[in-house]
Amino acid sequence: MLVSALLTSLAINSGLCILFFVLYSILRKQPSNYAVYVPRLLAEGKSKRRSHFNLERLIPSPTWLKNAWKLSEEELLSSSGLDAVVFMRLITFSLKVFSFAGIIGIFVLLPVNCTGELHIVDFTNLPNNSLDVFTISNIGNGSKRLWIHFSAVYVVTIFICYLLYYEYRYISSKRMAYFYSSKPQPHHFTILVHSIPVSVESSVSESVDRFFSEYHPSTYLSHIVIHRTNRLRSLINDAKQLYGRLTHLKSDDTQQKYHRSCCFGLCGRKVDLTDEYEKQLVDIEKNLRLEQSEVSSSGHKEARAAFVSFKSRLGAAIAFHLPQSSNPIEWVTEEAPEPDDVYWPFFSSSFMHRWISKLTVVVACITLTILFLVPVLIVQGLTNLSQLKTWFPFLESILTIKIVSQVITGYLPSLILQLFLKAVPPIMKFLSSIQGYISHSNIEKSACNKVLWFTIWNVFFATVFSGTAIYVVDIFLEPKQIPGKLAVAVPAQASFFIAYVVTTGWTSVCSELFRIIPFSFSLIKRPFTRSTDHELEVPSLPYHKDIPRILFFALLGITYFFLAPLILPFLLLYLCLGYIIYSNQFINVYAPRYESAGKFWPIVHDSIIFSLVLMHAIAVGIFTLKKLSLASSLICPLPIFTLLFNDYCRKRFLPIFVAYSAESLIKKDRQEENDPEMSEFYNKLVIAYQDPALMPVRFSSSSDGLNSPLISSAQV
Amino acid sequence: MLVSALLTSLAINSGLCILFFVLYSILRKQPSNYAVYVPRLLAEGKSKRRSHFNLERLIPSPTWLKNAWKLSEEELLSSSGLDAVVFMRLITFSLKVFSFAGIIGIFVLLPVNCTGELHIVDFTNLPNNSLDVFTISNIGNGSKRLWIHFSAVYVVTIFICYLLYYEYRYISSKRMAYFYSSKPQPHHFTILVHSIPVSVESSVSESVDRFFSEYHPSTYLSHIVIHRTNRLRSLINDAKQLYGRLTHLKSDDTQQKYHRSCCFGLCGRKVDLTDEYEKQLVDIEKNLRLEQSEVSSSGHKEARAAFVSFKSRLGAAIAFHLPQSSNPIEWVTEEAPEPDDVYWPFFSSSFMHRWISKLTVVVACITLTILFLVPVLIVQGLTNLSQLKTWFPFLESILTIKIVSQVITGYLPSLILQLFLKAVPPIMKFLSSIQGYISHSNIEKSACNKVLWFTIWNVFFATVFSGTAIYVVDIFLEPKQIPGKLAVAVPAQASFFIAYVVTTGWTSVCSELFRIIPFSFSLIKRPFTRSTDHELEVPSLPYHKDIPRILFFALLGITYFFLAPLILPFLLLYLCLGYIIYSNQFINVYAPRYESAGKFWPIVHDSIIFSLVLMHAIAVGIFTLKKLSLASSLICPLPIFTLLFNDYCRKRFLPIFVAYSAESLIKKDRQEENDPEMSEFYNKLVIAYQDPALMPVRFSSSSDGLNSPLISSAQV
Repeated sequence: MLVSALLTSLAINSGLCILFFVLYSILRKQPSNYAVYVPRLLAEGKSKRRSHFNLERLIPSPTWLKNAWKLSEEELLSSSGLDAVVFMRLITFSLKVFSFAGIIGIFVLLPVNCTGELHIVDFTNLPNNSLDVFTISNIGNGSKRLWIHFSAVYVVTIFICYLLYYEYRYISSKRMAYFYSSKPQPHHFTILVHSIPVSVESSVSESVDRFFSEYHPSTYLSHIVIHRTNRLRSLINDAKQLYGRLTHLKSDDTQQKYHRSCCFGLCGRKVDLTDEYEKQLVDIEKNLRLEQSEVSSSGHKEARAAFVSFKSRLGAAIAFHLPQSSNPIEWVTEEAPEPDDVYWPFFSSSFMHRWISKLTVVVACITLTILFLVPVLIVQGLTNLSQLKTWFPFLESILTIKIVSQVITGYLPSLILQLFLKAVPPIMKFLSSIQGYISHSNIEKSACNKVLWFTIWNVFFATVFSGTAIYVVDIFLEPKQIPGKLAVAVPAQASFFIAYVVTTGWTSVCSELFRIIPFSFSLIKRPFTRSTDHELEVPSLPYHKDIPRILFFALLGITYFFLAPLILPFLLLYLCLGYIIYSNQFINVYAPRYESAGKFWPIVHDSIIFSLVLMHAIAVGIFTLKKLSLASSLICPLPIFTLLFNDYCRKRFLPIFVAYSAESLIKKDRQEENDPEMSEFYNKLVIAYQDPALMPVRFSSSSDGLNSPLISSAQV
Repeated sequence: MLVSALLTSLAINSGLCILFFVLYSILRKQPSNYAVYVPRLLAEGKSKRRSHFNLERLIPSPTWLKNAWKLSEEELLSSSGLDAVVFMRLITFSLKVFSFAGIIGIFVLLPVNCTGELHIVDFTNLPNNSLDVFTISNIGNGSKRLWIHFSAVYVVTIFICYLLYYEYRYISSKRMAYFYSSKPQPHHFTILVHSIPVSVESSVSESVDRFFSEYHPSTYLSHIVIHRTNRLRSLINDAKQLYGRLTHLKSDDTQQKYHRSCCFGLCGRKVDLTDEYEKQLVDIEKNLRLEQSEVSSSGHKEARAAFVSFKSRLGAAIAFHLPQSSNPIEWVTEEAPEPDDVYWPFFSSSFMHRWISKLTVVVACITLTILFLVPVLIVQGLTNLSQLKTWFPFLESILTIKIVSQVITGYLPSLILQLFLKAVPPIMKFLSSIQGYISHSNIEKSACNKVLWFTIWNVFFATVFSGTAIYVVDIFLEPKQIPGKLAVAVPAQASFFIAYVVTTGWTSVCSELFRIIPFSFSLIKRPFTRSTDHELEVPSLPYHKDIPRILFFALLGITYFFLAPLILPFLLLYLCLGYIIYSNQFINVYAPRYESAGKFWPIVHDSIIFSLVLMHAIAVGIFTLKKLSLASSLICPLPIFTLLFNDYCRKRFLPIFVAYSAESLIKKDRQEENDPEMSEFYNKLVIAYQDPALMPVRFSSSSDGLNSPLISSAQV
């Protein structure tokens, strides 16, 4: 790749970025777009739809940029919770890393590379230079200059490890502080028990009551048995939709309220739609209540799982940490998620069931990751010109135009790949959801991991080795040769990844500004469910999509920093854009639906460690390839120390993210011992984990006395 | 190898076995050997030294054989504990496996192999047949007969998995029953806490007291801080030796009680040895008490670790299972071992110290395992004839005799290997002891694992690939080619391993009968320490040596059963011999020093699973090599299902071996709630974990009032 090509791409993409920013600046100020661009402010009532027109609305203003950039951590914490803080710290962490690496890369490594042995930079005609002259490829075999790269690898590794330690410690302390400052929360007092053994003569509820009254008499408070409510949930959805349509009809006078009961409106009488909907709604509600009472009264809809609440945090922790039953696959305990975070359709049946579904998902994920490129390549193969001509003969005349054919052959395959890639996060999220996780946050976390490894495998390794993942697996089955093969393949793709950061990175992060638009379609499709701005559905940030993306760019930066330091300024720009955009779409758009209190950080930590070790492997290979075997041997201690450092961090910090200590639980319990508000909290706690599908529902205006509360399954 | 060679070896070794048995039958009846052959009976007072002579003492009798064979599990459990039962079940488990595999192997596979395509057995001259005609090597490529081997692999895998499941369940239930039937034991009520943070103004003891009174007020009973008592222990040893010598002098009138104080006894006056020893002893005891009081009063000898006892088992379990401190590397808890099982010189200093020593040991073990054969080969290389002649010129005349030179060149190298191998279990035990384990049982368990993997690596793989372990590592770095390489190499070594079972296996197990002899040397060296039979030191079975040995033979049997079924009858005989000898050397010799309640079984389970998967890998390779690719593909699900089965067992049974459940702990606690003996038990519990080096010691006859108890560090 020539410098000129990069400059062209840079110009195009910078232009696009500025255009996106200007467009967004204007569009966000249009009141009709408020629901799309500032749903959060709208829902919180902080922003009102102003209908009066003024000129200011049409002029792009940079104030939102300044606000986003200046957003302080305290503000973010109070408005969006600890998860958002952790997410933003991931970006600032990367910014710090690449600022440091950038200074070394641009001011030390780049001059060394440019004045390398193989090619001399032609300063008179800069755009015509190959990008290779800026990379390590320009250094001759056995050159002493490689020691500078060697030192850079050491210095940057030490710096990153120091930062990682500092961040882990900081986020751990934030997590502890968050716990100490939090009000009593139901999930701290509750555990989930599954694989409950049942005998013929007693129900699940009786078993739970007997077991916990027997073995945790002083701390046991109450329990709620989980029911299989899939059918109920679909009924409620039907009712909601119908209710939405009805509200819409009533509020909007322009709508046609009548339709003819016969085709084409030719025959039959007019029917009042409002009446009909009302009638249907009453029917559904009746069914719903019947089903509700059936579910909560009959035993066969009981899942063998229950939420068990305790009088203190310590009581819940004891029940969670100690193996409960002599049979390890009965009375299995888990920490309860927040009530809003519970994923109700989870697979709660039995130990075996959960085990098998987990194994299935693992196999499916691995298969998907490895075989992903096979169908993509086949579909791409089908899109050649002659094939298209056969399928769509009427296009033949257009396809013969040179520019059209160029676009099709050049962009169609990559478009198909991008479309397939777009489908991955939802697929991974679906797979995680059937894996047996009981909370949205855990599903999100697991999907985050899956997407991350998928991206590393199918974008990084598949590009580097220019082959499918099967081929990559083949390489990894001969671990001895990995550094050598990486050393040959990775630097060769340097210019590709530089271009990748500029194009895919920049535009994708800018399109974030508009990502909310697809979501707005769903608002248009069913605008009925929201009657006021306060009932607006505010989205939560899809961590499983965004964390892997940023981590992947961090991986690129870390592995390429000493090979092709030119990548660093582009990455820095990307991260700055990301910082502004994410801290903006937090202020205005996303609201936290649940709080994992920073549980995403260990994923970040692990993947940065992986990037470091990958960099070391590449360095070993490069120095061997460049005939500087002393340097390649001297790199070897570095991955070992990095892994030891990781092991230390796992021991020092990871337990804080897994469970709270007895010390902190007891301190917190004692704080509230004499708090008069606690009795009220206990009352709420007893019904906190009631399945929303079993709650009384009422949409229709008619009252028939059936909608009494159905909390019969909560045993106090 | 020819059949005749095997027959010769068989004859020699059977003769040796019978000789061993006869010798043992006679020697064990000599009263002077009682301390060597029946120390346990002697110590328990069940056997008395009879001095009257009778003829019966010189005639070998088989009654002990019958007693050993008929030893029931209940007897073994009551006399030697659950660990002995688990050990014997390992042998019976192997017996069951190889009886089943033996029937298939001898009656199905052997005839199939003998009538194979490549060679025909010459029944007229059986001894001249090669052993290869009895192995799978005799089957031609692509032969349909291989499907019989294929089925045998499936059938035996299923049978072994069934047996493994049955055994795991049985031993789990035994473990539970053992727990329910046991009297209150100190280690169920106690935990070990280490990495205790200390401030300037308070001692470790105060810290512990404050922490547990604060966070476990209702269950906390007492604690004992651990001191560094290495110097004390060596002083006590000195005193013991001196006391032994003194007792011996006093009791034995024939000994010379005087020696001259000057050289050659020419000048100076006679000194009464008894008096001198007595004086030395008093001095040592004085030092000892000074040191004791210093250790227990001054803070700087305190290790940052303590045994903390609780009023109930549940209390101890809660403190053990819950992370105690917000800083995960402070207040780290471990289950306490039995008081007799504590390994006092353990490294208790700090989290970092333990972590580093653990890493060092892991590295040392891996290095030793991989590099072990290098020095062996070098030493073996040095023992060639010309080298010996240069070193020992006076031997030249002997070395020229043909038979001597043959013996030296033929046996010296293998003797050197055996000597090196003998040194491995002690080395591994030493490494485990500095790894930071706090109990003898854990050290033994860890050493057991180390020795097992060492043996598999350096005996199995090094033989199979006829190279050093470095070469083997090289092979394992290309995992794709493992089955292929195994398939070529493993069957080629079939006759070697058949001979190995007969020679090393049989004789080693028979020499067990006399293994106690080296131990007896220590008795002879310091006979003074034992004044009566009741103070005799009874050895405990070195599990770290014997479990790996039997498991290694099980591995051989499982991997070779379908390749060379001829190995099975020899293995069966070996196991029968082992059964007799071990259940004998439990009745008479070994006494349990500690009880891990069956914690060794998971090691057995894992290594059998490993053997199965290894067998599957070999089978895949063999069927590919024999051009029956369908069979080799159809084997592939087998290792996957075996590993899944293992995963299920880990979830279903392993937790039982790790910790007792809340259910069983509470049941057991409630059983004893109103037991009047409990207050007495609590009194004992408070001082149960007193370091023996800090106990009052008194050997000398003079009393000077200094030997008052020193239990100042036990805080009630």
